[in-house]
Parts: sequence; C-alpha cells; structure tokens
Amino acid sequence: MSIKGNCIVAQSGGPTAVINSSACGVIQEAFKTDCITGVFAAHNGVLGVLDEDIFDLTREDTEQIEGLKRSPSSALGSCRHKLKSLDQSRADYERILEVFRAHDIHFFFYIGGNDSMDTAHKLSILAKEEAWPLIVMGVPKTIDNDLACTDHCPGYGSVAKYNATIAMEAGRDTEALYTHDTSTVMEVMGRNAGWIAAAMGVAHRSPEDAPHLIYLPEIPFTVEKFVADCKKVHKELGRIFVIAGEGINDGEGNYVAEQKGTFAKDSFGHTQLGGVAETLKGIIESEVGIKARYIKCGTAQRNGIHFASRTDRDEAYLVGQKAVQHAAEGTTGFMVTLERKSGKLYRCETGLAPLEEVANGEKKVPREFINDEGNGVTQAMIDYVAPLMQGEVEIKIAPDGLPEYTRFERHNLPQKCPKRGTQ
Amino acid sequence: MSIKGNCIVAQSGGPTAVINSSACGVIQEAFKTDCITGVFAAHNGVLGVLDEDIFDLTREDTEQIEGLKRSPSSALGSCRHKLKSLDQSRADYERILEVFRAHDIHFFFYIGGNDSMDTAHKLSILAKEEAWPLIVMGVPKTIDNDLACTDHCPGYGSVAKYNATIAMEAGRDTEALYTHDTSTVMEVMGRNAGWIAAAMGVAHRSPEDAPHLIYLPEIPFTVEKFVADCKKVHKELGRIFVIAGEGINDGEGNYVAEQKGTFAKDSFGHTQLGGVAETLKGIIESEVGIKARYIKCGTAQRNGIHFASRTDRDEAYLVGQKAVQHAAEGTTGFMVTLERKSGKLYRCETGLAPLEEVANGEKKVPREFINDEGNGVTQAMIDYVAPLMQGEVEIKIAPDGLPEYTRFERHNLPQKCPKRGTQ
Repeated sequence: MSIKGNCIVAQSGGPTAVINSSACGVIQEAFKTDCITGVFAAHNGVLGVLDEDIFDLTREDTEQIEGLKRSPSSALGSCRHKLKSLDQSRADYERILEVFRAHDIHFFFYIGGNDSMDTAHKLSILAKEEAWPLIVMGVPKTIDNDLACTDHCPGYGSVAKYNATIAMEAGRDTEALYTHDTSTVMEVMGRNAGWIAAAMGVAHRSPEDAPHLIYLPEIPFTVEKFVADCKKVHKELGRIFVIAGEGINDGEGNYVAEQKGTFAKDSFGHTQLGGVAETLKGIIESEVGIKARYIKCGTAQRNGIHFASRTDRDEAYLVGQKAVQHAAEGTTGFMVTLERKSGKLYRCETGLAPLEEVANGEKKVPREFINDEGNGVTQAMIDYVAPLMQGEVEIKIAPDGLPEYTRFERHNLPQKCPKRGTQ
Repeated sequence: MSIKGNCIVAQSGGPTAVINSSACGVIQEAFKTDCITGVFAAHNGVLGVLDEDIFDLTREDTEQIEGLKRSPSSALGSCRHKLKSLDQSRADYERILEVFRAHDIHFFFYIGGNDSMDTAHKLSILAKEEAWPLIVMGVPKTIDNDLACTDHCPGYGSVAKYNATIAMEAGRDTEALYTHDTSTVMEVMGRNAGWIAAAMGVAHRSPEDAPHLIYLPEIPFTVEKFVADCKKVHKELGRIFVIAGEGINDGEGNYVAEQKGTFAKDSFGHTQLGGVAETLKGIIESEVGIKARYIKCGTAQRNGIHFASRTDRDEAYLVGQKAVQHAAEGTTGFMVTLERKSGKLYRCETGLAPLEEVANGEKKVPREFINDEGNGVTQAMIDYVAPLMQGEVEIKIAPDGLPEYTRFERHNLPQKCPKRGTQ
C-alpha cells in the first residue's frame, strides 16, 4: 500500500514545555517526506478538525517553525475534547473523516496522552471500515509520565528539572529564614501518578537539602503520619520543606484536595479551604504549631522551557520525527515509544506500541521507587529520572530581556464541508 | 580617622536571587582591603550577632564564595528580627556592641531593606555615643523595589524577569487551552508597592500576550471594576490572564487577602498576605462564569537565580563591593544607592544615601507608570524596568542535571561573651 496525500498534525491535552518540539519534529520531517504533500495543523486538537479550523503550515515562517523547539505550550492550540466509543461518538468520528476527505488528508499525527491515543485508535478503525486510506500515528506527550508502553514521556524530564530546581531554590529560602518561615509546602502536578513529585527526590542530595518529605498519590495519605513526619524533620533540622503531589489521597478515593470526608476539617473542626498545598499548610500550622508557606506553580510548571531539559527536548523532537518516518513506510495505528537501553550510560531509542495498548494503560510509580516510610524516594527513582533532566535548552531573548516564543499566523484552509451538527 | 579591624557582614529580611552576589561583593572586596583584617559573617542577620553565632569567612572555600554569584537565597542565613528604637531595644543594641568589641569588629555591612537600614543607623548612633570606632554601611536589597533614595533595588530586576517569563509561559498555556481553561490568575509578591506586578507589563507585547490585566496595591481594587475588566477581555480574546499584586486592597486598608488567626502578622507586625489568587479565581468563576486557575509561586519567585537578570546580579555585586570601598575610606552611616544616568542607553552608577533617610522612606509605583484604567502599565514603566532585566546568569550544573548552590561550612568563632539575657 503506497499512500500519498496531505498530513495533519494536532496537539491535545495539557501543554508541556516540549510538546512544540514534537510538533516541530513532525512538521520538519513532513516537509522532507515525498509521500506527504501538504502539511496542515488542526487548531486546538481534534476540535480544529471537527470545526474545520485548519491552517497551512507551509505558509508559516520557517523561523517560527524552528522556534517551536524553544517555545512552551501548544502552539497549534490544544483541547480537552474527549471522543467516546465509536458507537457513542460516531457522528464526530464520521465528521473527522469527512473533513479529511475534503482536504485529501491521508496522514494524521496526534500528539497527546492516552485519551488522544484512544481517539486516534478509533479513528483508524473507522477509516479502515470506510475504506479511506489513512495513516494514524501517535506521538507521546504528558508531564505526568503515566503512559503505558514507553520508558518515559516527553514533557516529563522538563517539568521534573524545572520543579526540582524551584524546590532547591525555595528550599534555600526556608533554610535561610528558618527562624521565621519555618516550613514550606510545594504542590506539584500529577493527579493519579506521582512521577513529578517523586522526581523532586533528586534535589534532596543531603539531609539538609529540600525537599525533606515527598508525598505521592500511590501511597495512602494520613494526617497522623504526615504530622509525625513533619515533627520529626522539624526536630532534626528546624525547618521542613514538603512536596505534595496534587493527587494525594487516603487510598480509598478521598483526595486531600477535595476537602471531603477525612480531610474536610482540622483538629479544631475548622473546614479546610483550598487545594492540597493550602490544606497541608493548615495542618502544619495547627498540628505542628509552626508557620507554613506554600507554593503552587500551577500551569507555569509544565511550560518552563526557560529551564527545560535538553534531553527531554531532543527526545520530544525525535518522537515527532520518527512518527513521520514510520508513517512514510506505511506503519499505522502505533504510538512512537522511548526505549531505554541497558548500560551504565543513558541511551534511548524509539520503538512502537499499538495505540490501543497505550489507550488502555496507565503507569504508576512502582513501590520500589518509593522509600519504606512512603515519604520519599529510593536511589532507583533517582537513577531513573536524573538522566531525563540533563542539559539546558537555549532560549532566544528579545531586546526587552524576555524570551521570544513562536506564535503562528494561522492561514486557514478554505472551509469545504458544511458545519458539523453535533459537538 | 583611620580604622583597622575585623568586619562582619550579615543578610536580613526576605532572600532574593542575588542577595548572595551582594555578600560576594562585600566578602571579596574585604579580602582585598588592607584596613580590614578578619572577614566574618553573622549567621541569620542581626540574630547571629545577638547570639554570638558568627563564622569565619576566611575559612570557607574560595570556590564556594565565588559560587555566591550563582546561588539564590541568603547563604549567610537571614532573619526578620526587628530592633525598635534605641530606648526600647537598648539592651539589644548594647549587646551587639559588646559582641563587636569582643571580636574587634569595626566594620558592619548590613544587606537588607529599610528595617535593616534602620537597625544599622541606630547602631551607628550608639557606637558613636559609646566611642566604639565603627563603620556602618548599608547594602540595598529588596525584590519589592520600594527603597527610597535609589533608582531601583538589587533583587528586583531578577524577580521581574523570572515572573514575567513565567507569565509568558503560563499565558501561552491559557492561550492553547482557552476552550477549556479559560482564565488564569497569577499572584506576585509586593505588599505595599506594586513594582513586581507592574513589571509583568513587559510581557504584554501585543494585545494577545499575557498578562491582559494587572492590579497593583497603588490603585484601589473593586470587585465591580475587576469583573467588568475580565468580561471585556474575555469578550475580546476568549481568555484572560490576570496578574495580581499580593497587596491589592480597597484603598482603605482592607486587603483582598487578609488572613486571620495565629499567623496573621509577622514579627515586624506586618500583615501576612496570601490568598489573593484564590479569591480572584473565585470571583471570576462566580461573576464572569468561566473556569479559572491560579498560580502562586510564593518564595520560589524571589529565588529564581536559574533565570535571573545578569544586570541585576552584577549591580548586586557592585553595591556590596562599593560599600567596602567607601568603608575603607572612612565613610559611615550610608547605604550604597544605584543612580541611573540619563541617555538612551541604560547606564547605572552608585551613590550614597544616609541610612536614616532610607529607613524612613518608601517608594511606590508612580501614577504615570500605571494606565488610566488602573489595570495595566504605561510605556514609562516598561522603559523603567526592561533595562533591569537584561542578560542571563550562568548556573553551575551538577551531574544529576540540577544546579549547584553554595552552602557554607560555618566555622564559628569561639564565643567570648556571656549569652545575652534579652531576645
């Protein structure tokens, strides 16, 4: 089967510091690939396909495309539009194929997490049913690092490096001011998996170094243990720096951030307001009796290209590039994976995993990466993540002293099919 | 008057990304200065003097001292211990002189804000009264940029650059996901003055660019105007990125984020602020009716040496160095200032201001730096701050991929005077 036609690339889900590098890998490789004629982008992921909001990447400045390698967030636009099963969301899938047909699109590169891989997988089934020749390739992306079938995910190394650096820096603040600001809680992303929180362990090079305590969603959280941990560290060091994954919970579905059940009230019966960081701050102040501050970098943490990992950035580019190379060879229905090679020096190659397997999998932090106490990590975790945080990304700086990031002009393709009726 | 003897350097108040550069300037210049014999540091500011917790900088590794130029927070330790008037806190001031006499300390370099300059000033008065030859020099430090008598303060350019970069990066996240996460509120430091918030205006290069709205403590805040502003921006762009200074208030002393309870005030009696971002997020969700996220980088923002301003770093070093040079010439009772020279190209020299004047002054953002609407800044503000954010600081990276920061061994001087009786 030899397919020739236009390609479309789209980004989905939460942005990362390096998801644009993956887009860059797809785009620059597609430009060089004979069987790919036009190179298009869907604005805001699959929503852009449904809305026929598609722009022509060949009309963008090549410098802006190159600039994707040093620009955070999703320059093509992203979305959180989840398509359900082929039966339930058939109209949407049909609509996607209608738009693909209208624009002679035979290659679809979807950069995203497991929901996106699910969408891509189902679309490839429908295309086959309806005999529209379509190559579908997935490109992995998630800061959460919880995708199955791959050693790690592009986006993770950068959020790990950036957050760990912030933990070191803010940790030095707590250290310098321990006579006054005695403790700090830093909340990091990771709803179901604690990979980001666990990576902060690299910053804990010595007992002095923050973070002193790390809590992950994988280990049931109890206020009693937390307070005991804090008291112990405070006694030893005179200060405490805590990392809390946003998804920490009691192991029975009650999330600390949800303020329900177990965590709804402090020991005085006061309702705890706010997210994880605020809740733990409140617990430290009332139960340990020392002052606490908190840090919640929110979406800033996943977009920190100004101090990203070069290794992560380069791998993000590579998985995009490889997706196109495999597509050109006729491969379809797979996501490009990262395979770590054995040996003392870190070496990583790409592989392939069926979209369906990725869609249905989830990878949590293994128990052996977490210490016995459940409040820190082991050397195995450090050895896993440190190679992913190596090197820096060079940023382009404008005369005003701040970075310059790519923004596309978005020359839209003319709309060829009537508006979709369904959302 | 020719003084010869030991010197002591101390850091006070909230740390910054470059306060260690000022310490480095003091230390390295003191090493080269003939009339200065021993070079000591007080651990945790004036508390270290009161507790006779003093370490010998000549016994520290010179590489660690050089590393101060690329290390955040206060490596000497800091404090928020405020000394009151000479009458009220006489025992403390006497105790400081007692310790100085015991260790033949004739030079005192205090790196801090206006409270520290006040302490330094009063100490110099008492030393004169008691005929202890003492040179007292202040070295300016505050991210808040609110010190009187100086064009700007070391620490400000770096927090401005780092926060503005984060606002750009997180702003791109809101832009990419505007179909889902429609608005973001980012809270930045600045209790009484909105200099940090105002600097974020540099990131707003075009109407598209975050931040779209900036609120400063200088302009009375009303929920009605805020909601109207948000609705307008949302209508125009489909998304909103807001910067809020932590000290925004209604103009009548009511802070948006006033906390109550045990930790409501710090030991200087300042009201502790926090919760502005959460409050505004709540207002946007209920009054504008769109989803809001928030970012609160807390102490991380003031320690961001990993993306600090080189200009700021170099000026921080310079004011430390100059303080020693002036001291060696017999100057006492002054703080080193930064004087911006007129002309198209930014040029800055140092000057001197009496400690007393600095202690009693405060500099807010002038009205002409704020736009008419009170929700953004003018070109005058951009022209003021952009030169302070120029250049990057090179960081030393360890094999684990994270930065290496200085931590002193702290070889303490033998204690020579009985413990102080007062706190």
